[in-house]
Amino acid sequence: MKVLILGLDGYIGWSLALRQLSLGNEVCGIDNFSRRKSVEEIGSWSAIPILPIEKRISILQQEYGDKISFYAGDLVDSNFASDVIKKFKPDAIVHLAEQPSAPYSMIDQSHTLYTQSNNVLGTLNVLFAMRNHAPKSHLIKLGTMGEYGTPDLEITEGFMEVEFRGKKATIPYPRFAGSWYHWSKVHDSNNVAFACKLWGLRSTDIMQGVVYGTRTSQITDPSKHTRFDFDEIFGTVINRYCAQAVIGHPLTVYGKGGQTRGFLALEDSVQCMSILIANPPETGEYRVVNQFDQQYQVSDLAERVKRIADKKGLDAQVQRFENPRVEKEEHYYKADHEQLKKLGFKATRHIDDEINIMLDDLIIHEDRIRAKKDQMTKLVKWRDGSDMIKQRVVNPLILPMD
Amino acid sequence: MKVLILGLDGYIGWSLALRQLSLGNEVCGIDNFSRRKSVEEIGSWSAIPILPIEKRISILQQEYGDKISFYAGDLVDSNFASDVIKKFKPDAIVHLAEQPSAPYSMIDQSHTLYTQSNNVLGTLNVLFAMRNHAPKSHLIKLGTMGEYGTPDLEITEGFMEVEFRGKKATIPYPRFAGSWYHWSKVHDSNNVAFACKLWGLRSTDIMQGVVYGTRTSQITDPSKHTRFDFDEIFGTVINRYCAQAVIGHPLTVYGKGGQTRGFLALEDSVQCMSILIANPPETGEYRVVNQFDQQYQVSDLAERVKRIADKKGLDAQVQRFENPRVEKEEHYYKADHEQLKKLGFKATRHIDDEINIMLDDLIIHEDRIRAKKDQMTKLVKWRDGSDMIKQRVVNPLILPMD
Repeated sequence: MKVLILGLDGYIGWSLALRQLSLGNEVCGIDNFSRRKSVEEIGSWSAIPILPIEKRISILQQEYGDKISFYAGDLVDSNFASDVIKKFKPDAIVHLAEQPSAPYSMIDQSHTLYTQSNNVLGTLNVLFAMRNHAPKSHLIKLGTMGEYGTPDLEITEGFMEVEFRGKKATIPYPRFAGSWYHWSKVHDSNNVAFACKLWGLRSTDIMQGVVYGTRTSQITDPSKHTRFDFDEIFGTVINRYCAQAVIGHPLTVYGKGGQTRGFLALEDSVQCMSILIANPPETGEYRVVNQFDQQYQVSDLAERVKRIADKKGLDAQVQRFENPRVEKEEHYYKADHEQLKKLGFKATRHIDDEINIMLDDLIIHEDRIRAKKDQMTKLVKWRDGSDMIKQRVVNPLILPMD
Repeated sequence: MKVLILGLDGYIGWSLALRQLSLGNEVCGIDNFSRRKSVEEIGSWSAIPILPIEKRISILQQEYGDKISFYAGDLVDSNFASDVIKKFKPDAIVHLAEQPSAPYSMIDQSHTLYTQSNNVLGTLNVLFAMRNHAPKSHLIKLGTMGEYGTPDLEITEGFMEVEFRGKKATIPYPRFAGSWYHWSKVHDSNNVAFACKLWGLRSTDIMQGVVYGTRTSQITDPSKHTRFDFDEIFGTVINRYCAQAVIGHPLTVYGKGGQTRGFLALEDSVQCMSILIANPPETGEYRVVNQFDQQYQVSDLAERVKRIADKKGLDAQVQRFENPRVEKEEHYYKADHEQLKKLGFKATRHIDDEINIMLDDLIIHEDRIRAKKDQMTKLVKWRDGSDMIKQRVVNPLILPMD
């Protein structure tokens, strides 16, 4: 099977490439290295060092020969998108090549416009390239559970049945996204669903929860490590807490900490995507899956990381920070996630074990985390009118955690 | 009251400027003349000639002095959008400055990308400029009834109440748009609603039906005429039928002709927008109104135009053409449109009278219509893989009309 990974150089893209190669599939990757550049732009870096792309690919070629290929380029360049798909003729296309950070999209006007144009236009170029050169290919598009937001309703997988004024209908589940980034993913979902209807393409739109972890079964030595961001902009919550615990920085809980989300380990994210690659929907079908293992509240996660860190003799404190985001801090949350289980997904990682491994992996790179510790709290205020990255460190509001 | 009209040089923008000036309001307009350029690009022109913008503005200034001002520029240029709003400090901003044609967005990949980037990024720039320089201003954003598509449910005005798994909630009415253009408007609606929530802006999102007509009460002599497009790409259905009737060209009904839409006269479109300008929503409110007068099936409209044309001695024939669009040709359609009535809207034009006036206005310009008659049937096939404007004339399928 031929799998095209858009965004191969990223946190999940790299991990998925390793998995797909280990399964015997042929992998082609592309990347424009925007993740490396954006993290550098905001003054941070990956806690775990990663090799330059040439070395990464060369190491894979030593093991897998011509089963791995790579092209540097940008999906917003429609010729590039078209050329790659025309040349590789993939059976599956996993689209991880978007600006993936909500806070980054909230920095200022230019970052908002970049996020929406990059994500929407890049995806449109992929859709047109598929129509022209690989109409039977399966597009696995990374969306986010954040498209749904936190409505006061149970969250379904993409669609819901309603009765309204005496008529029944299946409608798309409503989206209540909470950042310009999250809305770019909703725009994508709408465009992808329309392309399936218009041209008979097939796609799985993954509403993914928050991913955590430093490892997968294929990440066995330093040359195969994937990046690990811990700054406020690109570091997701559990990953950031673990990095903070390692250097004795307060674990930054935003506001009341009652924010509930779905989470899954990197190992299981890669497992889910591999299951989807092996199980495409019908031609013309637009399928939505909710991809996460368990729901957690962020304040509980902070306490969990603290507890495990304490056992290792780390000095982890949990502190509430003024919430820079515009979000509910206490809310109802109950989301379906059955479809992947029906296809065979079983969570293989327990969160406590994973946090344990993460802390061990990160302790080695304590110096790299400490060097960029200010980037953990250089909070982008989502409601602000400012048009520059905030340089100030926000003073934490010292609130009781109970 | 200070009213900023984005897209003043267009069909509705110009008509609204005349109305707002006649009401004593101060009007500032902007335009990038994309409508003039796009209509030229596809090889057509306005049936009714319009003056160059300098002359249009100069004529208004003779009558209204410094109550009218104009800036040439593009909203995708964020500095331009910001400068205009900063300088004029509008009370209301009417946003008509988008690529407004569904078929244009379906021509090929570059026209799709242009439509979505132009519309989405231009609107984002307006929102940021409002936040920075006119946060109390009222954004009146032109969406379309086409955002809803043709679901098998009654259509509400923007939101619907549902009960789902034992919980009740108000959700956005689902969108089933049918072209890349229509989806760009959905993306806009989502972005505008989010900006209201995030920054406390206020906006009315108009889901407008199809507008027809050559006149408003202010269009009294040739120097004040608004443009009138009749080609397949920019000419809306009643307008196109009237132009076809005038030159004895078959009235081009697509497919079965059972497509039902909401319609309103240009005079009433301008009336509705003036009512909305005078009645802003609360600060932070995102309001959706469905703006149309009556629902009609397109085959009935063709018969109606034929009947009125016949009385004038015109030789109008109705013919079914192979449908280039991807749409249901027979479907349920019932859409609420109460909010504007509650604010005082009363339809002032009967469709038959309006068609009568249109035919009279167009007969004078029969030569201009005849010169571009091929542009009425150079049908853009929405499902096609081609990446160029089709030059061929599609042979009509001769089907019985009953």
